[in-house]
Amino acid sequence: MIRVSGKCVGKGIAIGRLYLYEKENAVLNKRLVEDEKSELDRFEEARKEAARELSELYEKARKEIGGEEALIFEIHSMMLQDESFLDSIRDAIFQGHVNAEYAVHQAGESFAEAFASMEDEYMKARSADVLDIASRLVRILTGFGGGSLDSAEPVILLAEDLSPSETVQMDKNKLLAIVTRKGSANSHTAILARSMNIPALVQTEVELKPEYHGKRAVVDAGEGTLLIEPAEELLEAAVKKKMEADRYRSGLEELKGKENITSDGRSVDIFANIGSASDARLALREDAGGIGLFRSEFLYLGRGEPPSEEEQYEIYKEVFSCMAGKKVVIRTLDIGADKQVDYLGLKTEENPAMGFRAIRLCLSDPELLRTQLRAIYRAAVYGNAAVMFPMIISEVEIRQVKKLAGEVRESLLREGRAVGEVEIGIMIETPAAALISDILAGEVDFFSIGTNDLTQYTLAIDRQNEALEPFYDPHHEAVLRLIRMTVENAHRAGIWAGICGELAADTSLTEAFLDMEVDELSVSVSSVLEVRRAVRAIGQKGEAG
Amino acid sequence: MIRVSGKCVGKGIAIGRLYLYEKENAVLNKRLVEDEKSELDRFEEARKEAARELSELYEKARKEIGGEEALIFEIHSMMLQDESFLDSIRDAIFQGHVNAEYAVHQAGESFAEAFASMEDEYMKARSADVLDIASRLVRILTGFGGGSLDSAEPVILLAEDLSPSETVQMDKNKLLAIVTRKGSANSHTAILARSMNIPALVQTEVELKPEYHGKRAVVDAGEGTLLIEPAEELLEAAVKKKMEADRYRSGLEELKGKENITSDGRSVDIFANIGSASDARLALREDAGGIGLFRSEFLYLGRGEPPSEEEQYEIYKEVFSCMAGKKVVIRTLDIGADKQVDYLGLKTEENPAMGFRAIRLCLSDPELLRTQLRAIYRAAVYGNAAVMFPMIISEVEIRQVKKLAGEVRESLLREGRAVGEVEIGIMIETPAAALISDILAGEVDFFSIGTNDLTQYTLAIDRQNEALEPFYDPHHEAVLRLIRMTVENAHRAGIWAGICGELAADTSLTEAFLDMEVDELSVSVSSVLEVRRAVRAIGQKGEAG
Repeated sequence: MIRVSGKCVGKGIAIGRLYLYEKENAVLNKRLVEDEKSELDRFEEARKEAARELSELYEKARKEIGGEEALIFEIHSMMLQDESFLDSIRDAIFQGHVNAEYAVHQAGESFAEAFASMEDEYMKARSADVLDIASRLVRILTGFGGGSLDSAEPVILLAEDLSPSETVQMDKNKLLAIVTRKGSANSHTAILARSMNIPALVQTEVELKPEYHGKRAVVDAGEGTLLIEPAEELLEAAVKKKMEADRYRSGLEELKGKENITSDGRSVDIFANIGSASDARLALREDAGGIGLFRSEFLYLGRGEPPSEEEQYEIYKEVFSCMAGKKVVIRTLDIGADKQVDYLGLKTEENPAMGFRAIRLCLSDPELLRTQLRAIYRAAVYGNAAVMFPMIISEVEIRQVKKLAGEVRESLLREGRAVGEVEIGIMIETPAAALISDILAGEVDFFSIGTNDLTQYTLAIDRQNEALEPFYDPHHEAVLRLIRMTVENAHRAGIWAGICGELAADTSLTEAFLDMEVDELSVSVSSVLEVRRAVRAIGQKGEAG
Repeated sequence: MIRVSGKCVGKGIAIGRLYLYEKENAVLNKRLVEDEKSELDRFEEARKEAARELSELYEKARKEIGGEEALIFEIHSMMLQDESFLDSIRDAIFQGHVNAEYAVHQAGESFAEAFASMEDEYMKARSADVLDIASRLVRILTGFGGGSLDSAEPVILLAEDLSPSETVQMDKNKLLAIVTRKGSANSHTAILARSMNIPALVQTEVELKPEYHGKRAVVDAGEGTLLIEPAEELLEAAVKKKMEADRYRSGLEELKGKENITSDGRSVDIFANIGSASDARLALREDAGGIGLFRSEFLYLGRGEPPSEEEQYEIYKEVFSCMAGKKVVIRTLDIGADKQVDYLGLKTEENPAMGFRAIRLCLSDPELLRTQLRAIYRAAVYGNAAVMFPMIISEVEIRQVKKLAGEVRESLLREGRAVGEVEIGIMIETPAAALISDILAGEVDFFSIGTNDLTQYTLAIDRQNEALEPFYDPHHEAVLRLIRMTVENAHRAGIWAGICGELAADTSLTEAFLDMEVDELSVSVSSVLEVRRAVRAIGQKGEAG
C-alpha cells in the first residue's frame, strides 16, 4: 500500500481505480524542409484550427464554469495573434528551414522561458499559457500530444497538472476525483473540483508510475491523503466513511428549498462568501439566500494592472444577473497585508496586518475606488446590489467613502448612464469599529462583522502564526461581546447586521448568534446547508438542552 | 551659519561656545626593542594602573549614574585579565620585539575587528570596549591619547562619540550640551545627557572642523538642530525660547513636594516609567510617587545570554532601595516584536507586533520567568514591590503565571531565603483584556493600562508605520471607552487601575482620566511634574470651562 499526502481543494471521499493521465509524446523531430512555403501553409492551417478550438472552449467554459474563467481562452486567442510570437515561428521556417511543429515548439519554449523570468507575477503566469498554446498547435500539426480520458467507468485522475484547456475538455461524468502533483488552491484543477463538488488533492507527493494505472485507490480530501492499493481494513473504513458522508450529504441536499428557521420560529438569512463569478453559480446550487461577501480583491490579483471599469462591470453584472434579485454584497478592494500586487508598488511593512491596506490604500488612491464604484453602480441595474468598505475605524472614513460614492453616482447620471440602487455598509473587523458601532450605525445601511480580522486584532494574535496556536481562542468572550455589541447597536439604529467571517459557519455558535439576533450569516458555499441544518435543529427536543 | 540636524536624546535648549573634543594622537611608532623583559614590565605596570583607574571609574559611575551603568567598567576589568588578549600582547613583545604601546594597539585593533565581525549583537558591542581598553593602556604607556575638557566656561561639547570612560570622567559642571556624530538613543552619551538633564543630539550630520572650536552655537533638542554661528535673529529667538523654557522649568521645579490634587480635591498618583536602575534616581529627583513601569526587558537586550538571577536581584534591589518604600512595579520580560535578542532564537514573524512575544514567550519558556520572579521576590525585601505581566488576554494565562509565582515563592522559602511581599497585576494592553476586565479583575491586585499597544490593536494600526499617520487617532473614542471600562471593572472588584502608556502623559486627557477615576498615571520621568501641573490646574477658574 502506498500513502501520499497533498493539499485538499475539494471535499469528500472517492474510491475507485486510478487513471494515469499523461500527454503522449508528440512527434517533434527537427526536419529540414525544402518547401518552406508549404510548411508555412501547414502552420497557418493549424493556427486557424487552434483558433476555432479556442472559441469552442470559450463557449464551453462560459456555460460550464463561468465567464470569468472562460476569459483564459480569450487570452490564448490573443496570444495566437501575437506578431512577435508568429514572426518567431515564421522566421524559423523560412530562415531555419525547419518543420512547422519544431518551429512552434521552439518558439513556445523560448517565449515561455522569457515570461517565466519576468518579475511581475501576472507575466510569469503567462508562461503556462504560451506552453498550452504551443502544445495545442503541435497536437494539431502532428496528431499527437493530446491527453485523453478514455475509460468506461469513472476514475480517479492522476496527473502532473491540468492545463486550462484540459480542465475544460475533460468528460466530467468520468471523474471521481483529481490528484495532481502541481497546482495550487486557486488552480484550474481546484476550480473544476469545486464546481463539480468532487474530492481533489494538489501538490501531492506522488510519483506518476505507469504501474499505478488501473490500481484501486482512495482519495480522502478531508484528510488530504491518497491511498494506492489500500489495505483491506483501510478500504473498508473508507467505504464506511464514504457512506456516512454520502448519507450526510444527501441529508443536506434535502434541505435545499427549506427555510432557515428554528423550531421556535426564529429565522436568519444564510448567504455565501464568494471570490469569483463562477462561485456565484455554486452558491445558487447550494441554495444560498444571497452573497454576503464578494471578495473583489481576487479580480485584482495576479495581473499586470488593476482591472478596468469595463472588466469589473462585466463580472459584477454576471454575479448580479446570476443571483437573480437575491442580495449581493460586494466588498471593495481589500488588498495589502497578505494579499499583494506588484502594480500598486506597496512598501514592505513591519506589521502588514496592521498596515496600509484595504480602505486605507483606497482612500489614499481614490481613483482605484472610483473605478470600482463606477462598475458597481452600473452593474447594480442587473440585481440587488450592496457595497461594503473594509477596515473602517471612524465615521470620518465613512463620510469620505460615501462622498466618493455620491460623486460617482452623480457623474454616471450626468453621462447619461443607467445606475442601480446600491445599499452602503461597512465591515466591522476592528475592535475600534465594534466599540463605536453606536456612532457608525447612523452613517450606513448595514454592518457585516468580519470575525477573522476582528479576532486577531482583539487578541493581538496573528492567526497565520503557528507558534501562537496555544494562545488562540476563536470563541474568546471578548470577541463574542464585540459581536453582541455591534448587533445591538445596529438594531438600535434600525439597520441590519450580519457576520461574514469564519465564525459564521461555526455551528457550535449558531444558537448564540440567533440569541444575539444576528440578521445574516455569510459562510463559504460548502457550509450553507450545514448552517441551515444547525439553525433548524435549534429548539428541537433533546438539542435545546 | 551652519544648520545640522541630529537625533534628540536630551531635552531643552543650550546656547554657548562649541568645544571640539578630540583625542590627541598617541605616539604609536613601531619600535624594535632589544630588552623584551623590561618592555614587558612597562606593560605590566600600565596594566596595573589601568585596573586601578577602572576600579575608580566604577565607584564614580555607581555614585553618579547608577550601578547598572557602572557594570561596563567591571566588564573592562575582566577584559584586562583575558588571557588570549594578554598573550597576544606578550607574544608581540617577545616574538615580534616591538614596543609595548604598539603591541597593545595592534592587539586592540585585531580583537576589536574580530568582535565586530561576529553575528551576535552583544559580542559586536564588545568591539568598542576592547578599543576603549587599548586606548587607556596606550595613554598610560605614552602619556598621550586622552581627550580632555579644558575650558573655563561651560561649553557645548562636539565629539565623534564618547566612550563609557570619557562619559564618566567628564567634568559635568562644564557641560551645556553634547553633540556627537555617532551614538544612539541608548548610548552612554544619551544616558549621561538624561541624568544631567541637558540637551543632547546624537547621529548628527556635522563635520568636526577645527575652526568650529570656540564658535558660538545653539543646540535645540526639541527640534533636533545644531546651529553654528547662528544668524542674529535666530540667536535672539533661541535666547527667548530658552528663557521661556527656563521659566517653565523653574515653574515645574516649584511643584516638587506638592500633591497631585485638583482644586476640587480629587487626587491621583503620578509614577514614572523607567528602563534602568539609573532612571530610578532621576524619577526620585523629579519627585515621582513611585515607579509605575520598570521595563525589565532592557536588562535582557544587547547581551549574549539572559541576565542571571543574581544580576537581576542586584538591579531590582538597587531600584527598590533607591525608591525607599515607594511602590515599584516591575513588568516581566516583554521581548519579541520590535525588541529582539539573539540568544532566545526567536523566528522571524510576518506580524511580530501580534506575535510570539512577552508572556507568550515566557509561558513557553517558563525558566526565563522563573529566574526573573526569583530575583523579584528576593529583592522585594528591600522595598514596596509589585510585578505585572504583559500581553495577558485570558484568565487561564493569569492562573498560569500566578501558579508559577506561588511555586517560586515556596521554593525560595524552602531554601531558607528571605522573600518580600509582591503585589501581582497585569497589563491591559489588548482589546481582549480590556473587554473581559470584569472577569480578569477577580484574579489580580491591579491593572496597568498600556495605551500604546492597546491603541494599535484597537485601531489595527501599527504605530511605527508612517504611511498610516493620516488614519491614526491617539484619542480615538474606542480606546477611551476601553480605558473607562477597565477602570470601572477594576473598582467594582476593589482593585486599583493605572495607565502606563504614552496617553498617561497627554495633558489634554488628564481631566478625562481624573473623571474616569484612574488611580495612577505612570509617565516618562521628564513628564512627572508636567502632569502634576495639569492635575493641579483642573477645576481652577478659567480652566475648568
